[in-house]
Amino acid sequence: MTDQSSMNIAVFGLGSMGYGMAQSLLRAGHTVHGFDVVPHQVARFQDEGGAGGELADIAGGLDAVVVVVLNAGQTEEVLFGDDGIVPRLKDRAVIMSCATVPPEFAMDAEARCAAAGIHYLDAPISGGSVKAAEGHLSVMAAGRPEAFAAAKPVLDATAETVFDMGDHAGPGSVMKSVNQLLAGVHIATMAEALTFGMQQGLAPDRFLEVISKCAGTSWMLENRAPHIIDGDYTPHSQVDIWLKDLGIVMDIARSNKFSAPIAAAALQQYVAASGMGLGQEDDAAVAKVYARNSGQQLPGEGS
Amino acid sequence: MTDQSSMNIAVFGLGSMGYGMAQSLLRAGHTVHGFDVVPHQVARFQDEGGAGGELADIAGGLDAVVVVVLNAGQTEEVLFGDDGIVPRLKDRAVIMSCATVPPEFAMDAEARCAAAGIHYLDAPISGGSVKAAEGHLSVMAAGRPEAFAAAKPVLDATAETVFDMGDHAGPGSVMKSVNQLLAGVHIATMAEALTFGMQQGLAPDRFLEVISKCAGTSWMLENRAPHIIDGDYTPHSQVDIWLKDLGIVMDIARSNKFSAPIAAAALQQYVAASGMGLGQEDDAAVAKVYARNSGQQLPGEGS
Repeated sequence: MTDQSSMNIAVFGLGSMGYGMAQSLLRAGHTVHGFDVVPHQVARFQDEGGAGGELADIAGGLDAVVVVVLNAGQTEEVLFGDDGIVPRLKDRAVIMSCATVPPEFAMDAEARCAAAGIHYLDAPISGGSVKAAEGHLSVMAAGRPEAFAAAKPVLDATAETVFDMGDHAGPGSVMKSVNQLLAGVHIATMAEALTFGMQQGLAPDRFLEVISKCAGTSWMLENRAPHIIDGDYTPHSQVDIWLKDLGIVMDIARSNKFSAPIAAAALQQYVAASGMGLGQEDDAAVAKVYARNSGQQLPGEGS
Repeated sequence: MTDQSSMNIAVFGLGSMGYGMAQSLLRAGHTVHGFDVVPHQVARFQDEGGAGGELADIAGGLDAVVVVVLNAGQTEEVLFGDDGIVPRLKDRAVIMSCATVPPEFAMDAEARCAAAGIHYLDAPISGGSVKAAEGHLSVMAAGRPEAFAAAKPVLDATAETVFDMGDHAGPGSVMKSVNQLLAGVHIATMAEALTFGMQQGLAPDRFLEVISKCAGTSWMLENRAPHIIDGDYTPHSQVDIWLKDLGIVMDIARSNKFSAPIAAAALQQYVAASGMGLGQEDDAAVAKVYARNSGQQLPGEGS
C-alpha cells in the first residue's frame, strides 16, 4: 500500500455494518475517521486505529464519505442537515450512501451533491455484519462513472461483489428494496413454516435438516432458522429493521399503485413482534409471534 | 439386476412425476404396470417397456403399488374405492403413497391397510419432474419398519435422498405440507418482487442475476424466475397445484387453530391466477396477476 493510494475517509454510522466497513477500510491502509451518535463506538474504533479529530476540522481533507446510517432521514441529516457534511467537502469528493432509502431520495441526493461539486454513489449493501467485517459485502451500486471511479478504493476494500446497476443514482436503491422484500418475507415465512410444523410434532432441528435439502429452502431460512433452534436472539439484524425496510417497500408500492399482499402480510408479523416488545431482538424473533398465537413454546422458552 | 431383486410394481398416475418414477423403476429392471385416467399416457408408457394387463388380472401378483395421483381424494379412490386395489393385493404387499395429503389421511390409510395385511409408506416426494425421470427425488417417508423394508427397492430406484421421518404414517405428510407452505410462498413472492422491481425499471434478467447472489434468493426463485424471463409458461408444475397444496396447508392450519397469514396471502394470488384462466399454466404464471394488477407487460406478452 503506497501513500498514493491511501485515502482520507469518514464513515458515518458505526453500527454492525458500518463498524465492519470501517475496519475493512483501515486494513486496506486508508486513514479512517469514524462518527456515530454513540460515543463508545467512536472511542472503540479509535482504539483500533481509527483517526481522531472534529468533523469541522477534518471535513475539508476527506476524499470519501461512507454513510451507513439507518434510513433516509438520518442520511439527509448527515449530508444536508444543520451540520451536514456536503457543504464542507472539497470538490469532487465522493459520498457512498449505503442505507436503504427510497429510490427518489437517492436521485434527489445525487442532484443536490452534483450542485455542490460532490460525487454521489447510490450504494446499498447486502451480506450482514460478518461479511462487512471481512470486506466481503455485496454492493448494489448506481451512479455516474466519475462517482464509481472516485469510490473505487472504498469498494475494493469493502466489497466482494459490486453490481453496477446503472449510470445514475436510483437503481441501486431499487435493487435493494427488491432484495429486502424477498429477504423480509423469507424470514417470516421460515418462522411460519417452522412453527406450523412444530404444532404437528416436527422438531425444529429436523425442519432445518430436511428443508435445507428440499425445494422449500431459502438463503434466509438457512441463515436464521438456527437462531430459533438455538433459542439465541442476539441481534444480528433486528426485528425493527424490517418495520423500516418492509415499510419502505410498502411506501414505494403504494405510491406506484403496486399491490404487494405478501410483503404486507409479512410486515404485519414484524409489527406484531415489535408490539410484543421484541423490536431490538434478532429478526428470527418473529417466530415468537407465531408461537404465542398458537400456544407453543420455542426452544429455550419456558422452564 | 437378478430376477431375485426384480419386483412386480404398479404405478398409479402417469403425470409428470409419476411417469418419471415409472421410467426410473423400469430402468432398475422391475416389471412396471402404469395406470392413468389418460389412455394415451398408458399406451406411451407401454411403448417404452411398461407391462400391460388389466388391473383385475395383475393386482394379485404385485409386490408394490406407487400412488402418484393428485390428492387425498384420488388416493382414496385408488386404494379403497369401488375398484380399489387394497383388497386385491397379496399379503404384505406395500403401498408407497406419494400424493400431498393431510397427515390424518395418511394415518387413517395406514390403519386400513394394516387391517388388510398391507404395508403403507407415507411417502410424499419433492424435486420436480426432471429429478423424477432421473430417479433423484427427495422422499419424506414415514411408516413401520416393515413398510420401509418392503418399499426399499422402489426407494432405491426413484430417490436420491430418503428422509426417515418416523415409524408410523403421518410425519412424512407433515414435512411435505411444511415444504409446500414454503415453496408456494416463495414462488409467489418471487413474482411479487420481480414485478415490483420491473415497475421501477429493473429488467427481469438483471433481477435474477443479482438476487441469486444476494440474501433474497430462494431455491424456487432460481428455478422459476427463468420461466418469466423467457415468457415460457409450459407447465412443469401448474398454478392449480398450489390451490390444492396451499389449500391443504390452510385446512390443516385452521383445524389446528394456527394463524398462517403469509401462506394465506400467497394462496389468494394463485386463486386469482386460476380465476384469470391460468390454472393449467406453469405456476410462474402467478406473475401475470401482479402484472395485470399493476398495468405491466411481462416478457413475451403483448406485441
